[in-house]
Amino acid sequence: MQIYGDINSGNCLKVKWVCDKLALTYDWIDIDTRKGETRTPQFLKMNGAGQVPTVELDDGRTLAQSNAIIRYLARGSTLIPHDAFTAAKMDEWLFWEQYSHEPYIAVCRFQLVYLGKDVSELDPEKVKRGYAALDRMEQHLAASRFLAGDLISLADVSLLAYTRVAHEGGFDLGRYADVRRWIGEAEAYLGLAPAR
Amino acid sequence: MQIYGDINSGNCLKVKWVCDKLALTYDWIDIDTRKGETRTPQFLKMNGAGQVPTVELDDGRTLAQSNAIIRYLARGSTLIPHDAFTAAKMDEWLFWEQYSHEPYIAVCRFQLVYLGKDVSELDPEKVKRGYAALDRMEQHLAASRFLAGDLISLADVSLLAYTRVAHEGGFDLGRYADVRRWIGEAEAYLGLAPAR
Repeated sequence: MQIYGDINSGNCLKVKWVCDKLALTYDWIDIDTRKGETRTPQFLKMNGAGQVPTVELDDGRTLAQSNAIIRYLARGSTLIPHDAFTAAKMDEWLFWEQYSHEPYIAVCRFQLVYLGKDVSELDPEKVKRGYAALDRMEQHLAASRFLAGDLISLADVSLLAYTRVAHEGGFDLGRYADVRRWIGEAEAYLGLAPAR
Repeated sequence: MQIYGDINSGNCLKVKWVCDKLALTYDWIDIDTRKGETRTPQFLKMNGAGQVPTVELDDGRTLAQSNAIIRYLARGSTLIPHDAFTAAKMDEWLFWEQYSHEPYIAVCRFQLVYLGKDVSELDPEKVKRGYAALDRMEQHLAASRFLAGDLISLADVSLLAYTRVAHEGGFDLGRYADVRRWIGEAEAYLGLAPAR
């Protein structure tokens, strides 16, 4: 399998972490989106949306969308709850991540880290919605060890990607004790050095 | 099962359509988001994100996020491909819908239909990205009968919701012959009267 990705992108790291945890063999192919490397005819043939991560299986078939990729690669593993309803709660968090978390927290981080903007230049609405996402995680994690219950799942892997580097997007995690507890547990599970 | 939803919301209709197609029994409970009905303590207890659709199963457990709900309700049916890779391609479209389609096409429609704005007041960036989503669907559907291959799946149900009413968001579907062919086939499958 080949993973086309950017090592600084949380969406791409999700795929790397799942492969590493499950000992899946892969080649990592660095893609620089800012150099237009996802817009070449060759890349668009693999993924018409022109986005990373994109994986190419050994038989040449390709798959995109970080959460769809990790859901496919982790099938049959303990990262997907065996119980159908608990798996559905995992899915609820995966879709929420892409709609209500990533567009605010990851996008603010992108603007500061990659575009070199200042915190004062961030869209206040994006900042507000990013904090609303963190608020919701804190409330949930105050009562639940992991997002889909007592056991770690892809929901935690997915949300970890941008939550652990939220401070790089200008977000203050200081008031989120349960989110920080959860970040530590998920990082330890994946064998990651603390991000901060 | 109780479905809390807004009958004019594509995200909510996805759930209704799947239940109707699979002959699942449910009570529909109309929720008016603009009257703050998703922000009451009672509603937030069911769904901390304060969004519709939210379903409450007969045992009291609740589930949110339209695509997670339909994925749960349709488990074991032909709406989810039996082959794991084809199911992953379905998931790819489901995540793409929430990240690259709904935030542009549904949001433009919301601003015209619900907020009473004029097309000239729409954010040009949202319009551009909405057309990019339609372009991508057209390109794919020119070579594939349905989104995840030859057979209809939840990917089609999900993308149908806002694509069939894209014109209400100011999008001209005239140049998208394959999208229109696909809308007709998906509507017929679900027993829906044409939206336009």
